[in-house]
Amino acid sequence: MTFDLRIQPDVAELALRVRAFIDTEIIPREGELESADHGLSPEFRRELQEAARAAGVFAPTVPVALGGHGLDHRAMGPVLEECGRSLLGPVAMNCSAPDEGNMALLELIATPEQREHYLEPLCSGTIRSSFSMTEPAPGAGSDPRLLATEATRRGDDWLINGRKWFITGADGADFSIVMARTEGGATMFLVDGDNPGMRVEKRLPTMDKAFSGGHCIVEFTNCHVTEPSILGELDKGFEYAQLRLGPARLTHCMRWLGAARRVHELATAYAIQRRMFDDRLADLGMAQQMLADNEIDIAASRQLIWNAAGALDAGLSARTETSICKTFVAEAVFRIADRSMQLCGGSGTLTDHPIARILIESRAFRIYDGPSEVHRMSIAKGAVRRSSRGELPGDWQ
Amino acid sequence: MTFDLRIQPDVAELALRVRAFIDTEIIPREGELESADHGLSPEFRRELQEAARAAGVFAPTVPVALGGHGLDHRAMGPVLEECGRSLLGPVAMNCSAPDEGNMALLELIATPEQREHYLEPLCSGTIRSSFSMTEPAPGAGSDPRLLATEATRRGDDWLINGRKWFITGADGADFSIVMARTEGGATMFLVDGDNPGMRVEKRLPTMDKAFSGGHCIVEFTNCHVTEPSILGELDKGFEYAQLRLGPARLTHCMRWLGAARRVHELATAYAIQRRMFDDRLADLGMAQQMLADNEIDIAASRQLIWNAAGALDAGLSARTETSICKTFVAEAVFRIADRSMQLCGGSGTLTDHPIARILIESRAFRIYDGPSEVHRMSIAKGAVRRSSRGELPGDWQ
Amino acid sequence: MTFDLRIQPDVAELALRVRAFIDTEIIPREGELESADHGLSPEFRRELQEAARAAGVFAPTVPVALGGHGLDHRAMGPVLEECGRSLLGPVAMNCSAPDEGNMALLELIATPEQREHYLEPLCSGTIRSSFSMTEPAPGAGSDPRLLATEATRRGDDWLINGRKWFITGADGADFSIVMARTEGGATMFLVDGDNPGMRVEKRLPTMDKAFSGGHCIVEFTNCHVTEPSILGELDKGFEYAQLRLGPARLTHCMRWLGAARRVHELATAYAIQRRMFDDRLADLGMAQQMLADNEIDIAASRQLIWNAAGALDAGLSARTETSICKTFVAEAVFRIADRSMQLCGGSGTLTDHPIARILIESRAFRIYDGPSEVHRMSIAKGAVRRSSRGELPGDWQ
Amino acid sequence: MTFDLRIQPDVAELALRVRAFIDTEIIPREGELESADHGLSPEFRRELQEAARAAGVFAPTVPVALGGHGLDHRAMGPVLEECGRSLLGPVAMNCSAPDEGNMALLELIATPEQREHYLEPLCSGTIRSSFSMTEPAPGAGSDPRLLATEATRRGDDWLINGRKWFITGADGADFSIVMARTEGGATMFLVDGDNPGMRVEKRLPTMDKAFSGGHCIVEFTNCHVTEPSILGELDKGFEYAQLRLGPARLTHCMRWLGAARRVHELATAYAIQRRMFDDRLADLGMAQQMLADNEIDIAASRQLIWNAAGALDAGLSARTETSICKTFVAEAVFRIADRSMQLCGGSGTLTDHPIARILIESRAFRIYDGPSEVHRMSIAKGAVRRSSRGELPGDWQ
Repeated sequence: MTFDLRIQPDVAELALRVRAFIDTEIIPREGELESADHGLSPEFRRELQEAARAAGVFAPTVPVALGGHGLDHRAMGPVLEECGRSLLGPVAMNCSAPDEGNMALLELIATPEQREHYLEPLCSGTIRSSFSMTEPAPGAGSDPRLLATEATRRGDDWLINGRKWFITGADGADFSIVMARTEGGATMFLVDGDNPGMRVEKRLPTMDKAFSGGHCIVEFTNCHVTEPSILGELDKGFEYAQLRLGPARLTHCMRWLGAARRVHELATAYAIQRRMFDDRLADLGMAQQMLADNEIDIAASRQLIWNAAGALDAGLSARTETSICKTFVAEAVFRIADRSMQLCGGSGTLTDHPIARILIESRAFRIYDGPSEVHRMSIAKGAVRRSSRGELPGDWQ
Repeated sequence: MTFDLRIQPDVAELALRVRAFIDTEIIPREGELESADHGLSPEFRRELQEAARAAGVFAPTVPVALGGHGLDHRAMGPVLEECGRSLLGPVAMNCSAPDEGNMALLELIATPEQREHYLEPLCSGTIRSSFSMTEPAPGAGSDPRLLATEATRRGDDWLINGRKWFITGADGADFSIVMARTEGGATMFLVDGDNPGMRVEKRLPTMDKAFSGGHCIVEFTNCHVTEPSILGELDKGFEYAQLRLGPARLTHCMRWLGAARRVHELATAYAIQRRMFDDRLADLGMAQQMLADNEIDIAASRQLIWNAAGALDAGLSARTETSICKTFVAEAVFRIADRSMQLCGGSGTLTDHPIARILIESRAFRIYDGPSEVHRMSIAKGAVRRSSRGELPGDWQ
Repeated sequence: MTFDLRIQPDVAELALRVRAFIDTEIIPREGELESADHGLSPEFRRELQEAARAAGVFAPTVPVALGGHGLDHRAMGPVLEECGRSLLGPVAMNCSAPDEGNMALLELIATPEQREHYLEPLCSGTIRSSFSMTEPAPGAGSDPRLLATEATRRGDDWLINGRKWFITGADGADFSIVMARTEGGATMFLVDGDNPGMRVEKRLPTMDKAFSGGHCIVEFTNCHVTEPSILGELDKGFEYAQLRLGPARLTHCMRWLGAARRVHELATAYAIQRRMFDDRLADLGMAQQMLADNEIDIAASRQLIWNAAGALDAGLSARTETSICKTFVAEAVFRIADRSMQLCGGSGTLTDHPIARILIESRAFRIYDGPSEVHRMSIAKGAVRRSSRGELPGDWQ
Repeated sequence: MTFDLRIQPDVAELALRVRAFIDTEIIPREGELESADHGLSPEFRRELQEAARAAGVFAPTVPVALGGHGLDHRAMGPVLEECGRSLLGPVAMNCSAPDEGNMALLELIATPEQREHYLEPLCSGTIRSSFSMTEPAPGAGSDPRLLATEATRRGDDWLINGRKWFITGADGADFSIVMARTEGGATMFLVDGDNPGMRVEKRLPTMDKAFSGGHCIVEFTNCHVTEPSILGELDKGFEYAQLRLGPARLTHCMRWLGAARRVHELATAYAIQRRMFDDRLADLGMAQQMLADNEIDIAASRQLIWNAAGALDAGLSARTETSICKTFVAEAVFRIADRSMQLCGGSGTLTDHPIARILIESRAFRIYDGPSEVHRMSIAKGAVRRSSRGELPGDWQ
């Protein structure tokens, strides 16, 4: 399958508006994140979102009917890339993980009541959410079949028991979408943040800082939920998780590509003004090699992202496309950050420099949303499956 | 700039026709190349082209008016990729270097007489050509400004003196497009193969075998040509060379991507049937990693190629796009061949195995049409130029 | 030149004593570093050093006459490697940068008075020091010839003016060895920490935390020093810097190799107990590849270190050997940490996990003590020089 | 374990004699190999060996009692490295695979009669041999347990049946050491070249040319051998194979390191004289990077080789050391050849250029003597075993 990847003028215009917004409103405030003890505070988040609204760039992925820009996946490409040039951009524009993926999922399968109660305030930035799927070993991690958290019926209601970790945004989230094993498979439940059976045990000391609410261990102890809390249909949780996965993976790639571009911009500018060995650093061969490799990685990342976005817009599951894209982009972003740090020498290693922040912050992207190794396994299996069927692996069809 | 990259149904149909042609008519004859002493003979070439004509896949890049399929660059993407699955494909389908690039250039700037005399028989496969630009050091190589071959006026005519090397297809070519320094720059001349002043000194013992006429040293000694032999305008040779370069580079990438897919297909099939350590090779993690990296490299190569093709079809010079594309693809193809050889173990190292042939044959692609290092230098300079102007390097715009 | 690289039994015994010390006394206290705001406090340092003294592993590089173990460079190999398994080890054992290098230099060129005043208390851990050489651009960085800090005579005395940065340990150091430009070249001065002309302007927010006194910007404003403050001879600063450089670079490699081994140990242990896809992680091919590449990188790093140590012990300058060693090891350590993090998945990305700490902490090692690119430039120049002289590059002689 | 790696003066002197021999006697004759149809002819081999004898460099690995230089493994390091600078060196000096490994094995376990009949003429170069172990899938390849060739008793004698491939030197060999399954395991048999039951079915069209007798498919059909043909003890074949493996692997590394040095020498010399962009190629950053990486790879390879040689000389099996060494060196050699080709541009890609020859010839070294992947698997298992036992992986002990 191949796609029409033209960016429409209104999308380009929005993307450039986002660029200006990030440059003038967000980047000047990045120091506040660095000096924060525990990442992004609620107040800071509110201020940033206010600024995005004022700039007309709030909620790009949200349907127009819910106050957003209603972009399709291809349109998200340049817009989220621009947004990602600052680690604060996604929060400001209300298109950060996990809210962005949760909104997309709710839009697809929520009941009218759930839409009103969860989706609408989420879209407007009034509330925050989390997605409670990953569990510590031996539970659901790279291998979702190992899901250990259980929901057991108690009359018409359900009791959820289990333990999750790396739950992004859990600390302070107004609700969580919780995956739990049910008799016929897995089910997604909407659990309110004040449900006494759901407790944030600990905020994990992750390398990143730019996610509201951090990444937490969350404990479910006889967490009581009622029938209307079920999101979508009973026992269809694994399917929904797949539904959420591809697009969420792709928006991650878009945002991180923006971060990669940012460090490349900084490294290029530094290499131009820095003199070494009677030359501009930018004119030394080894520096040129790093700058060129950044350009190549950025170009390849972008084309893989846009192609996968085209596939999603065409209604395909695009599992191979998003796996390939995620694996390449996650590794490319880290390479770009690493080269850019090397180009900037000592100054780039300071934690208040965007390069150091982005290098550190992006490292885990090679692990979350499927480690590179697990994606490679599944990409290889795809090639083997094709070949076994008499089709051609690596085909353009 | 972004592009509509959809493959039209007729193009997809043609590409699949090419696939069938390669599988049934060309691959079975690959052994004949291997056993040949000096590469592809004229008779063998004629037979292959006959087969392509019969299969309706001859001359895909040639304008319809001249008997070809008249594909634009995007359409060439899948068609030349399929064609490239065998090293013999491009010759069979009359879209191999340097003829393919020469046809494109002649189409743009030849006079009616030159079209009739050179372009038409070239399109029909009746004759072969070469492109005499590269010179041994210290002449024109990676740095074309060093062009040493000179054309000096003698009355209304010209005498060309100089020495070229790595002139693909020169041995037996019916004519050559020759770059020579003239007073105001460089000029392209059409020199007939039987011109006594142009002599193939030697066929170079290159690693590859699949080019008709090999790669030669060509000497020009008072090579006498007349005014109508000038291709395009006097002194515009460097501009024309640029014009020829981008598209020619891209068709190289397309053909080599096909070769990469071929070795990946073979390696996948091998890994499925080969058992090791009580498992299929295809199920062992290190093999999966190699298969997946092949898939990733193929996908990224293809998207970079198609994007650059879109840029050319939009009438852009696309120098950065084709440089990035060429650098990435040339390296990716070699990586893919290298991994595929590793997967196939001893059997893949035999010179009559397509993997060994393609590994060896593709190595020089990282050197010709601009070595990776020279492309990286120019890609880096592009980033620096953008940044110096206040634009953003790595931008999607 | 080739060397006797046998580790003597007493050295092996000391190294194993260090291992036990690190395991039982130091590793249990690593959490205290992580929770510290500004790195390693003076009290914490004192306690750690007390423990090392009690364990008989204090000051391994210090001459016996000064209370140390008097190891030669080859003996330092295993001992500092063991010491480096914890980022706290070098401080505890009083063999961390920059004190270790300063002691070695003072031992070589200090006057009896300087020995008594600076070297002896430094060896006993009573005081700390810094080495003030690096300057912000356009001063002395990768290119030491650009030294901008100046010492001008004023009567018999000197006034130092200039600005240094990335001065490790400066905050709280009892004295600094300061490189300043003098008429005939550069000169090293011993400046007391309480000299009012030397001011720690700022502690830089570097990615690492495990150096006492951080990395600082230090300002020299009419910093007044007297003749006896000159270390060694006037105008010989560049030579002394070279003298200090090779050995200091090598002890860095030894310590970091220990850190690399530590993360490899942790990753191996994790891969053994973690189950994935019905197997031990340790038995999955892609994990095996990472574990094996760690082993290979460790083995190659160690042999390069020991060989360079042999060269230093033989009285050679060993500039090429230490450059090759430093470049390889700095990159290998980061690769090892990166792979180990990937093996450990989410848990390895937590900042209180040694893998995350060591990954972050070691990144700058590819920049300080000469960025990889500058070392590569000088290694290449060495090869070119040899070849130009009719010698063979890459020779074993 | 650590070793005394000093090269003794007489060894250094011999190594330099080998260097002079290769430079003056062997390199001038390399063109004869290139133009040969089927690799190295018997006459050519004889002449080369004559020259080596005259130069006093014949048979360096052979015991003194048998007319050789009797070098231990450490001494072989520099000598075989020098020898390997030409692909013809090992044949000339009678230390090429498989003869060199066969001599070492016979020296260890042959009976007096076998020594006289096989070992002595092999040492003097009068005869050639092969080692018949590897079988096509599903037989003994990376996994020797799959040995399919069988020896069955017939009275006091034996009949061997099976099929081997990639049997180096088989075409024209005077005898072969044949591994065959026997009741209690595997047994090695000495089979004379004129035994009618052993037939060279085909010489495989491998990428390399520099092995006397090529790499062949060998068929055993009721191949009749008698009791005195058993090499060593019955059923101990797997043990002997291990005994032969480590040292043979190491001498491969030594020879290939020499080849790597050779291409590096050529690339350095080329980069010095070639001008590009108004500079020497050798002074351009990207070229410097390639030259430096060659130097680093050479240095690390050499230290890993010498360390493993020390282990073998100390009587250790050194399986991990030789596995690490083989994996690193095989990959490093190819990287070095690849970079050197890139440095030399078009001229390095000609098959009569040593760089092209060595690049092509060395590729299979990553596959034979254990593919990199199988070595990595076993290196990883070693780390896991150590860790499981409470030892430390990556330890220097």
